[in-house]
Amino acid sequence: MSPKITTELLKQLRQVMKSPKYVQEPVQAYIVPSGDAHQSEYIAPCDCRRAFISGFDGSAGTAIVTEQHAAMWTDGRYFLQAAHQMDNNWTLMKMGLKDTPTQEDWLVSVLPEGSKVGVDPFIIPADQWKRMSKVLRSAGHDLVPVKENLIDTIWTDCPQRPCKPLITLDLSYTGVSWRDKIVALRSKMAERKVLWFVVTALDEVAWLFNLRGSDVEYNPVFFAYAVIGMNTIRLFIDGDRMMDPAVREHLQLNSTLEPEFKIQVMPYGSILSELQAVAAGLSPKEKVWLSDKASYALTEAIPKAYRYLTPYTPICIAKAVKNASETEGMRRAHIKDAVALCELFNWLEKEVVPKGTVTEIIAADKAEEFRSQQNDFVELSFATISSTGPNGAIIHYKPVPETNRTLSVNEIYLLDSGAQYKDGTTDVTRTMHFGTPSAYEKECFTYVLKGHIAVSAAIFPNGTKGHLLDSFARSALWDCGLDYLHGTGHGVGSFLNVHEGPCGISYKTFADEPLEAGMIVSDEPGYYEDGSFGIRIENVVLVIPAETKYNFKNRGSLTFEPLTLVPIQTKMIDVNLLTQKECNWVNDYHQKCREVIGAELERQGRHEALRWLMRETEPLIRVQ
Amino acid sequence: MSPKITTELLKQLRQVMKSPKYVQEPVQAYIVPSGDAHQSEYIAPCDCRRAFISGFDGSAGTAIVTEQHAAMWTDGRYFLQAAHQMDNNWTLMKMGLKDTPTQEDWLVSVLPEGSKVGVDPFIIPADQWKRMSKVLRSAGHDLVPVKENLIDTIWTDCPQRPCKPLITLDLSYTGVSWRDKIVALRSKMAERKVLWFVVTALDEVAWLFNLRGSDVEYNPVFFAYAVIGMNTIRLFIDGDRMMDPAVREHLQLNSTLEPEFKIQVMPYGSILSELQAVAAGLSPKEKVWLSDKASYALTEAIPKAYRYLTPYTPICIAKAVKNASETEGMRRAHIKDAVALCELFNWLEKEVVPKGTVTEIIAADKAEEFRSQQNDFVELSFATISSTGPNGAIIHYKPVPETNRTLSVNEIYLLDSGAQYKDGTTDVTRTMHFGTPSAYEKECFTYVLKGHIAVSAAIFPNGTKGHLLDSFARSALWDCGLDYLHGTGHGVGSFLNVHEGPCGISYKTFADEPLEAGMIVSDEPGYYEDGSFGIRIENVVLVIPAETKYNFKNRGSLTFEPLTLVPIQTKMIDVNLLTQKECNWVNDYHQKCREVIGAELERQGRHEALRWLMRETEPLIRVQ
Repeated sequence: MSPKITTELLKQLRQVMKSPKYVQEPVQAYIVPSGDAHQSEYIAPCDCRRAFISGFDGSAGTAIVTEQHAAMWTDGRYFLQAAHQMDNNWTLMKMGLKDTPTQEDWLVSVLPEGSKVGVDPFIIPADQWKRMSKVLRSAGHDLVPVKENLIDTIWTDCPQRPCKPLITLDLSYTGVSWRDKIVALRSKMAERKVLWFVVTALDEVAWLFNLRGSDVEYNPVFFAYAVIGMNTIRLFIDGDRMMDPAVREHLQLNSTLEPEFKIQVMPYGSILSELQAVAAGLSPKEKVWLSDKASYALTEAIPKAYRYLTPYTPICIAKAVKNASETEGMRRAHIKDAVALCELFNWLEKEVVPKGTVTEIIAADKAEEFRSQQNDFVELSFATISSTGPNGAIIHYKPVPETNRTLSVNEIYLLDSGAQYKDGTTDVTRTMHFGTPSAYEKECFTYVLKGHIAVSAAIFPNGTKGHLLDSFARSALWDCGLDYLHGTGHGVGSFLNVHEGPCGISYKTFADEPLEAGMIVSDEPGYYEDGSFGIRIENVVLVIPAETKYNFKNRGSLTFEPLTLVPIQTKMIDVNLLTQKECNWVNDYHQKCREVIGAELERQGRHEALRWLMRETEPLIRVQ
Repeated sequence: MSPKITTELLKQLRQVMKSPKYVQEPVQAYIVPSGDAHQSEYIAPCDCRRAFISGFDGSAGTAIVTEQHAAMWTDGRYFLQAAHQMDNNWTLMKMGLKDTPTQEDWLVSVLPEGSKVGVDPFIIPADQWKRMSKVLRSAGHDLVPVKENLIDTIWTDCPQRPCKPLITLDLSYTGVSWRDKIVALRSKMAERKVLWFVVTALDEVAWLFNLRGSDVEYNPVFFAYAVIGMNTIRLFIDGDRMMDPAVREHLQLNSTLEPEFKIQVMPYGSILSELQAVAAGLSPKEKVWLSDKASYALTEAIPKAYRYLTPYTPICIAKAVKNASETEGMRRAHIKDAVALCELFNWLEKEVVPKGTVTEIIAADKAEEFRSQQNDFVELSFATISSTGPNGAIIHYKPVPETNRTLSVNEIYLLDSGAQYKDGTTDVTRTMHFGTPSAYEKECFTYVLKGHIAVSAAIFPNGTKGHLLDSFARSALWDCGLDYLHGTGHGVGSFLNVHEGPCGISYKTFADEPLEAGMIVSDEPGYYEDGSFGIRIENVVLVIPAETKYNFKNRGSLTFEPLTLVPIQTKMIDVNLLTQKECNWVNDYHQKCREVIGAELERQGRHEALRWLMRETEPLIRVQ
């Protein structure tokens, strides 16, 4: 990787920072955040403005350019990559290190008195604007919104905003019609006494209208906003995709509907002016509901007295609780996904052991190939982490030609992968050894497995937040002085984003919503030995009611049911470190893999993979 | 309990709310919070203003009086008590229930346009002022500071502020001299680039100067503030207690010290004007450090640009980490406390079983009597919770004549008690049955014990926050559908407050500081069956380094060592529900009780109690 030469680009940016064509007054600093206008985790190429100006294309980072300086804030995952990708114009600000200043403090330290700091108000979330502008103001500077994105003005070959065709999902997939979702949303609005709701997150728009898209890689979403009133529905979306007869039929655009279900389609770019018009028509005590992470531009369009902000929207919460159709879809998707992985692992065993010609990239491609053979396959749900030996210890690794390593009988192989099927989203990690694992590797694997089981088999009262379960996943590792530096689980969408709120299992997440039956999260403890190997065991699990003796005084009991049904390599397990209960859990799990995945492999005529499955799911026997 | 008649008092309060003698402009509402000027949990009688105006004397509650209304906000622990203690003038606002408005929202709903809401700026913490005043302002009202406390103006027989003699603690108790504590504090101040530090919490003043008092029951503190500069020390304290030669000697008030260690003693009431003088002398970039929970009055004395606020002060954090002298003191205190409890339980067995004449109050008094026989005993550390049968299910129960119940061989008895000794503070809960417990009672007790052990024996990496351990205490209960609705542990002071920050073990506490070796917390899971019994097993435990196989890549391992050494009643344990590891824990614990407490009972010639101890610590035998 050679760094991007940015001297000329920075010169151009500094010119437009002073150009009356773009800014009312010159700005002495310009902030280029990572995100798009919808606070998406994954973004489209046209939104990769920070990568364009700096060369650094990791998933997290904020660039700030002043007349004299250019600085990049990113976290520990990306220190190396950012240092490689950026030229000498840039200073790397290593977040998390003690001496690294915050963006605000750094700005205060370098700016001349009374400076203006510009940012695109559509890209910066309102809560972040508030924090930054407070610090800057108290030091005598001003954070100012710059309407035209200054990067876009110098990005001559900026790719177009994607505008791909939509997929309509019928009731068999969604369980609830978009009309009924609108009715439920309006009832939540009435409860909170708000008149309008602004949908800003792309997956929330997609979920609400039972539509999917492919504007962003891995995420089946499309660029759009929606504004829902008690009697109106406005959908802000571009392109001729709304001309598609299937979409028009799905949204009943040609029908004579009751007025409160009539969807007005408006240009994507008109959201701000329409919202301003809504605000202008408000009477005192009438409120507009937005996520507190919505962009500063949209939030400011609603005068403060009329704003109703919450960390999680009612759509985010409703979307997290999967109904029977969605749950069934997720089950089907996970069965297909398991079939693909049984094929893959069987193939790997045949290829790796005698030939040694399989690289991480070849294995990842093969996994995609097997998945794509399955019904309703759409695309991958994230970039496959296919990593062997020391690469496995890099938690967010993605093989590229420079790092591509060959799988062997001497190293642990970690595969974290998933797909989007029309009926559900998958995300599974398995760690395996194609030769003979060392006693230490087996020991570590077994502790990770114990943690995985402790979460998966946990019983807890209704209303428990996921972060209270995080330590269960670590307890066995902690007993021996081992730990892993990431959370244990994240919410998973239903043919939607593989990471979604508002629930999760992490020592870091304190703003998570309580778990309820129907929510779907991942359970993925790990252990990483820098320079030698990585271990992670991940299932996607469904929150289900549990049977308990006393049922929490009728508050209700919950537990998890694994949706992922892929064998856990028993060769890696030190059975003597398991309790009898844990041993039974593994055997029961493998029995279920045999029954459910075995039947599907049989049905699909995949006999060799079926034999592999049967071999891999032989019961463990624990010597007392 | 008959309610307090408050009609006349409320009339008087409403008069002074309009009197130009006390308020610049009439206030339409007056807020009476629970606390004192130091945000103390326990308060002196002269600070019980909310109890005076309303009759309700629970530990938590806020009264608001308007021209038409009088309302009291309190939480679920006190709904019944508040309803009993207040007359019809008062509306009870049940916090935690869905339909109960917040104080701010209620004020907005009842106040006429453009109202003023008054509050004593010395009583309301700055963070609370900020929240309330924001809501009120956005609704067109004003929160205003009323200098003279309006309750005090009508409280004709208000008790005097206590001003009791001080106790000086020498190095053998404190381990560090007050001079060295000042040096350490100044180095923290230099690190954060602040010039002044304001000590507002009473236990922080006491700790800093190695002094103790008895101005507040159960808490060995005294009314004082301190302001520490880089070269000055100002102690704000009233009374002739500073004339005591021992105190003068301890603080070296008569010596010719280096100027930076010379303590200037000033009147308690002059803190505000002195702080204003400090503020007036500040140059730009000079900062004053305060707790963000300090009173609005003191916080406002420092202009915003000069304030440096943190949730925990460096004193709070230093105080939590006990040094070797303090730890040894705590060990000694817990040995004496265990001796007293062995005596008590031996006595109870002799009295309750054959005679049935012991009430909850008699048992509590007897516990105090045995404790007071021990060396360096000062007072109790909180009101003894002595509760039998259904009273045990009331978590914050304190026996009074109306509720006083007789201990019997048919009910579970729960005793949560502790003391202040000059060398340490204790807090211990034991639950026992003097007859034959039912299988269900034993089952519940055993789950609570399993939770207690899970926390006590937990191993975790250095830097772990206590709230991550909370679920360990619940896991065994959860498996059967049982839970308890309180946290698992709190920090414990060293001859200081029995509840102290910044660490704890709770599902509720998210702002806790990481645990480190030397911190002392309680481990007290429970189970409560409304109307029939309560179970709680509480030890005070010390955070110590642990030995682990891999030691978290040199990050270091921690675990707990019980300081409390009082037998856990084996009669209540269903041994078959314990794992072998848990069974060993109990036996090892009881072995240590025999060794340490047995030796002390022997030394003190308490042979009968020793025989009781030996009987109660017979090893458990688990049938495989």
